[in-house]
Order: sequence, then C-alpha cells, then structure tokens
Amino acid sequence: MRIDVLSLFPEMFTVPMHDSIIGRAIENKTIDLAVTNFRDFTKDKHRHVDDYPFGGGAGMLLQAQPIIDAYEHTKKVSTEAGYPDGKVILMDPAGKTFRQADAEMLSHDTHLTFICGHYEGYDERIRSIVTDEYSLGDFVLTGGELPAMVMIDAITRLIPGVLGNNQSKVEESFSTGLLEEPQYTRPADFRGMKVPEVLMNGDHKKIALWNQKEALRRTYLRRPDLIDHQKLTSTQKKLLADVRIEEAEKQRLNTSDKKNHFTGE
Amino acid sequence: MRIDVLSLFPEMFTVPMHDSIIGRAIENKTIDLAVTNFRDFTKDKHRHVDDYPFGGGAGMLLQAQPIIDAYEHTKKVSTEAGYPDGKVILMDPAGKTFRQADAEMLSHDTHLTFICGHYEGYDERIRSIVTDEYSLGDFVLTGGELPAMVMIDAITRLIPGVLGNNQSKVEESFSTGLLEEPQYTRPADFRGMKVPEVLMNGDHKKIALWNQKEALRRTYLRRPDLIDHQKLTSTQKKLLADVRIEEAEKQRLNTSDKKNHFTGE
Repeated sequence: MRIDVLSLFPEMFTVPMHDSIIGRAIENKTIDLAVTNFRDFTKDKHRHVDDYPFGGGAGMLLQAQPIIDAYEHTKKVSTEAGYPDGKVILMDPAGKTFRQADAEMLSHDTHLTFICGHYEGYDERIRSIVTDEYSLGDFVLTGGELPAMVMIDAITRLIPGVLGNNQSKVEESFSTGLLEEPQYTRPADFRGMKVPEVLMNGDHKKIALWNQKEALRRTYLRRPDLIDHQKLTSTQKKLLADVRIEEAEKQRLNTSDKKNHFTGE
Repeated sequence: MRIDVLSLFPEMFTVPMHDSIIGRAIENKTIDLAVTNFRDFTKDKHRHVDDYPFGGGAGMLLQAQPIIDAYEHTKKVSTEAGYPDGKVILMDPAGKTFRQADAEMLSHDTHLTFICGHYEGYDERIRSIVTDEYSLGDFVLTGGELPAMVMIDAITRLIPGVLGNNQSKVEESFSTGLLEEPQYTRPADFRGMKVPEVLMNGDHKKIALWNQKEALRRTYLRRPDLIDHQKLTSTQKKLLADVRIEEAEKQRLNTSDKKNHFTGE
C-alpha cells in the first residue's frame, strides 16, 4: 500500500511511523509511506500557506493552491511508481467518525492520501480533490497529524503480514461483542494480589466458564449497551443472571457498609 | 501541568510532542512532559515485560511488576518536583470513549500519568494503580502511544496560554452545535473555482445570513442529528426550511438527470 501524507510538520511522522510494528512494515516495503510538506509548494514569497477568510471571521484558512499543487505532485510520483490514484482523505472535525469498519475497508486500498490541516480551517476548494473526510471523535486537536497517524496505524495493521502471528486479543473481543475478561500472568502472587485459583488449576472447562462469566461481568458493569441478549447462548444467559445477583448483592453490602460508617454502627 | 508517560517506545513521543504548538508549551514550561520506558524497571534477566496468560489463551500480557515499579518511580520524581499524585490513565480499548468534555475536565489537573500498552493485554493487577481508563473510539491500534498523544494534545491545548490568540474556529462550531459553513480565502478565483459573491461585497448582514444558512445546510446534509430544533432562532428555522426545499429540488434534478442519462434522453 502506498500512503501519501500532506502536512506542514512532516517530521512528526518520522519516529512514530518508523518505530514498532508499522515501521517494520515500512522497512519490508509492505507499506510505502511518503510525507510531503505542502509549504514547499506555496507560491507566496513569504512561504505563507494560510490567509484571512473572505467575509471576515476568526482564524486563518489554509489556501487551496499549496495543498492542491502538492497533491498533484504526489499523484504524479505515485503514478510513476505504479500506484493508482486512490482515496484522498481530509482530516476534519466535521468528517465522518472513524471506526473499525472503515479501517477494514481502507486496508484493501492500494493508495491513500491524507491531508492534515492545522487548527485553522480549510479553503472550501481544497475539497475539490477530497474523496473522504474523517474525524477520530468528538474532541478538538491542534492539527490533523496525530489523527492521521492513528488512522494509518489502525488501517495498516490489518494488511496481511504486518502483524505476523501477533493476533490481538482485542480483535477477539470485538468479534464476541463483549469486553475482555480480566487476565493475569506471572507471578501468581504479586505483592498480595493473587491470580484467581480457577485460572491455575488446569481445568479448561472451568476456565472457559470463568472467562465467559467475567467477560459478561465487565461488559455488564461498563458497557451494558454492548450486550445483545438475543445473541447470548443459554449458558451465557445463566452466567449473566448470576452476575446480576452477585453485583446487586455487592451493591447492597456497599450501601449498608456506608450506612454503618455514617451512623457509626 | 506535569505529564508522565509510561511506554515501551519513549522515542515515539520525541518529535510529535516537541514540534508545533504543544512543543512550545513544553519549551516555556507550561507543560512538564516526562516519558519513562517501563522496560527499564523489569527484573527479568532477558528484559521481558510480558508473559503468557494464566489459564491459556492467545497473545501475551504485560506484567504488573515493571509498570507498577515504573509508576512508583515517576510518582517519587514528580512528588520531589512538587506535583501531587494525580490521575493515572490507562489507554485501553475497553475504556471510556474520550470526548471534549473529558479534555476540558482533565485540562484543570496538575499531574496526569498515561500508561501505554501494546496490542497484548494487561495483567489485571496493573489496574490497582489506575484511576481512569480511556479509548479514542471503536477501532483497534497496535499500541497506546498514539492515542495517548492525541489525548495529551486535546488536553494541553486547553491550558491557558498554550494556544495564545489562536482561537479555533472549530471551537465556535462546537459551541453553536452546528458544523462550520464553507470558508474561502484568496484568490477569489482559483482555477475557475470562485468564492461566492456574497462573501466579497462587504455587506456584513448578508454575510452573517449566508454563513448561518450554509452552516445549517452542511449540518443538515452531514449530521442532521446535531440540529436541535428547540435551540434554533426563528431566522435559523426559516433558513433551514429554505435549505430543505433547495436540497429536495437538487435531489429531484439529480434523479431526473440520471434518468435522462440512463434512457439516453
């Protein structure tokens, strides 16, 4: 996959994208990442890339010319390297919220271009080259670089060969629709905090039941909206019923604890 | 604000966090950022920080010891520097979805510690030092470093003095609850794409109306869920009614265009 990034801060991509797992994919040429500074394409003698908005208003806007010319340049270079034009993604707070399904869809593309703006807005005509607009979520950032890196990470890790055998537990969790159960590794006793007995006795049937129950408990406590009762097996329904009773009992004990505390009883 | 980060890839933070706006805040000591590699705290002779899960299952888990010891170390250093202990944030796909309201709340803190895991899970006992768990959204990443940087960016830009006078248009947009209207800067005619006449004639009343109408149009087309009819002024209600009629008409023309195209008429 060819990935072009247009950014005023190309250095921001050097370490994060060359370290760790994605960096190995760049090294072994699974990913061909090119970051271009669109300031190099401005025709302004002071190298400005922004200007005041027509009609007034706060802030500055990124001009169309440097970004569009930088895009035409990267398109030419990647065409010469044998890549099709591909999607042009604008990082924008008003864009579509990025989700795992988008990462999966985009991971099948062979060429993606990311346009990273800064806290100023974009001249509307930049959108003439844009095919998709994305936002990571409901929060405001100083620029589009970090969210572009997040998208690149989420997308490229899905390309066959990038993760190797490092199958992610998180993925399993996504596919069951439940949060992960608590997990433990050595030592069995860490400063008085012990691994639950059941996980150490080698009874795989009991372990599987415990895992299911604790995954249901965590999901019930944190994200009850994720539990789709129609999809639960009869075992899971029974486990969830137990969890509800146990948690209600804990709640009751907690409340009476507090009551005792406050009345001094 | 003191920010401690515990990560296996501390270099990932060097450029992104030292460039641009947040970097200036680090330089002028508004933010005191320290990134600690918790691998330096492992007691394993091969410097491993992960191990197999008790009870079996895919993947490896980050062990409690290196992370908790690294945290105790950073807590000691920051206490000596005069900072209170503060919140300990675990980057986790099962955490609470990070939103602007969280950024605002956390921007008032004086000390935050971020724990960045990798695609493996965490030994549950790591949660004994954690006060908050966050996720950026419904997508899977190779590690917690990029989402931690995103949170740090969103939080620190809200600290007084960090952005300076660079008031963000996006913020205004968040406060009106509507998406931004299209915006334009020079030139008035860019390769045949012209700035709307109304923005250039200096009639501020007309411009304000146009801005309101186009913000409503964009929101109506992209995020109708954001429009709270009870909060609209009578002018906005009238403008929105016009937008609906105009867009329905466009839709009708588009459909008949396509029809003509397909029938060859």
